[in-house]
Amino acid sequence: MREALAGIPEGALVLAACSGGADSLALAAALAFVAPRMRLRAGLVTVDHQLQEGSAERARLVAAIGGELGLDPAEVLTVTVGTAGGPEAAAREARYAALAEAADRLGAEAVLLGHTRDDQAETVLLGLARGSGPRSLSGMAAESGRYRRPLLHIPRSTTVLACQAQNLRPWHDPHNEDVRYTRVRVRKQVLPVLERELGPGVAEALARTAAMAREDADALDEWAAVAYENCALSDIGGSVTLAVSELEKLPDAVRRRVLRRAAITAGAPSGALSATHVLAVDRLVTVWRGQKAVDLPGGLSAVRRYGTLIVAISPIA
Amino acid sequence: MREALAGIPEGALVLAACSGGADSLALAAALAFVAPRMRLRAGLVTVDHQLQEGSAERARLVAAIGGELGLDPAEVLTVTVGTAGGPEAAAREARYAALAEAADRLGAEAVLLGHTRDDQAETVLLGLARGSGPRSLSGMAAESGRYRRPLLHIPRSTTVLACQAQNLRPWHDPHNEDVRYTRVRVRKQVLPVLERELGPGVAEALARTAAMAREDADALDEWAAVAYENCALSDIGGSVTLAVSELEKLPDAVRRRVLRRAAITAGAPSGALSATHVLAVDRLVTVWRGQKAVDLPGGLSAVRRYGTLIVAISPIA
Repeated sequence: MREALAGIPEGALVLAACSGGADSLALAAALAFVAPRMRLRAGLVTVDHQLQEGSAERARLVAAIGGELGLDPAEVLTVTVGTAGGPEAAAREARYAALAEAADRLGAEAVLLGHTRDDQAETVLLGLARGSGPRSLSGMAAESGRYRRPLLHIPRSTTVLACQAQNLRPWHDPHNEDVRYTRVRVRKQVLPVLERELGPGVAEALARTAAMAREDADALDEWAAVAYENCALSDIGGSVTLAVSELEKLPDAVRRRVLRRAAITAGAPSGALSATHVLAVDRLVTVWRGQKAVDLPGGLSAVRRYGTLIVAISPIA
Repeated sequence: MREALAGIPEGALVLAACSGGADSLALAAALAFVAPRMRLRAGLVTVDHQLQEGSAERARLVAAIGGELGLDPAEVLTVTVGTAGGPEAAAREARYAALAEAADRLGAEAVLLGHTRDDQAETVLLGLARGSGPRSLSGMAAESGRYRRPLLHIPRSTTVLACQAQNLRPWHDPHNEDVRYTRVRVRKQVLPVLERELGPGVAEALARTAAMAREDADALDEWAAVAYENCALSDIGGSVTLAVSELEKLPDAVRRRVLRRAAITAGAPSGALSATHVLAVDRLVTVWRGQKAVDLPGGLSAVRRYGTLIVAISPIA
């Protein structure tokens, strides 16, 4: 906790986002203990998603525990969850919007989230199943904008013990047992099998992998940003022109990131731009046999012409 | 297969390494079909590990199938498996030594291995469980020295169908069912649970992750090699001195690779040098508070002095 709060100016307000579960309850208690010793103000917010019977009463109880811990303010944020992107994504979106609103309104310097090493391991496995590469293996960041995750290297079981030791009674969210959610199946079916067959320490190994994958992806993005500037002959008005001779000098991992960046700069929607698209464009550079234009999402296409690669609205004149 | 053989000069000899299982049998048949059409000579080698009753007879049968497929030579390589590193590692070492000897003796340009997409997925999961970072997620290379793996993107089930279609009867190695082997447990317990809970396509996603992780690791190693040259003030006689000001300019992923390289150049055994060691050295750069020397394997230590980082035999004078 001390490490996570390092660098926050004295007197600033830090909020713990607390669902009432063991992890975020332990988080709130740790913040309540550490904040005064670091001359910080500490508060709690709890989100009522209005999705379960009695959720309002539940949220009031969590806020009351916050008050007993000495956290001030201790607020309930009531939200209405939409349906876009499925129930998990919609709830997450509503929750983060409420947290951002509360942080702004209360003038909080940081918002702490209770994700543990087990949550991180689950996130890595979900990313792995998508197979969308190292970035999707990098899990959740320990620090991202105003959000910080002080428990990201701590097992969930430790938060349960911390609650017991402090006589805090965590709430068991029935959603955490609902196997219709992929994440719940990862937690209850997949991780236990991995631990049983590959040995204990799998969750730790996954969390370690996430940290290293994040560093690697950051470094490669940095390289690709510089390389893009070297390769780009022009990028105006939805049309990007790159020098093939510069692209050819780059290692595969960097060249493909540059091509992805070019497509997005030209207007391709990043969500729709797959690795397969990027590989097809890449073959215009690496295995040039006079291929036709490669179609890309957003009505774009990529063509190779006279030593340049052009990504623009199709058809390219 | 054609793609895997591209670039091999006409008239050269290519060997298929064949255990008699469905994957390597399909591999041998594919080589026998394609090689003459690409004006290549094609042979088969099969390794008798002498670990199971009847293995010699089994190997003779596989060689005979090779002959019937038109592969020439079709040889049995008999090996004696040691014990170093456990049974799987010892068998692998003996096998690769025999393949290398045969390739040299027969003058083969390439040796083909029958690893499939499922083998690759298993390798990635084993690497993930070790948690030793993106390099361990990168699985097996499609091409590495004289070895090539033409089936690395093909599911194992396809090789079974290919054998059926060609009336080839694969051998079912009882070792492939022996759950004392971690790899067998991954195949029979872990991957099926992943497929069931996360959806089909997990093996494909894992193989895709491997390919991307390999590219990323290659690119970062390349960057680290250049960065090391920029940072190294001297590296003679088991002592490496790096400029802290240059190290500080690098992203985490690259700086840690440079530090790892420095420790190995100074004489640290790479197998014993863990991520924890490298992180401790890294803190001499990033969170400098006058720390003591950091002990490293091989009797080395790392100290920071007057803007330089020295890795050398300890104690450093």
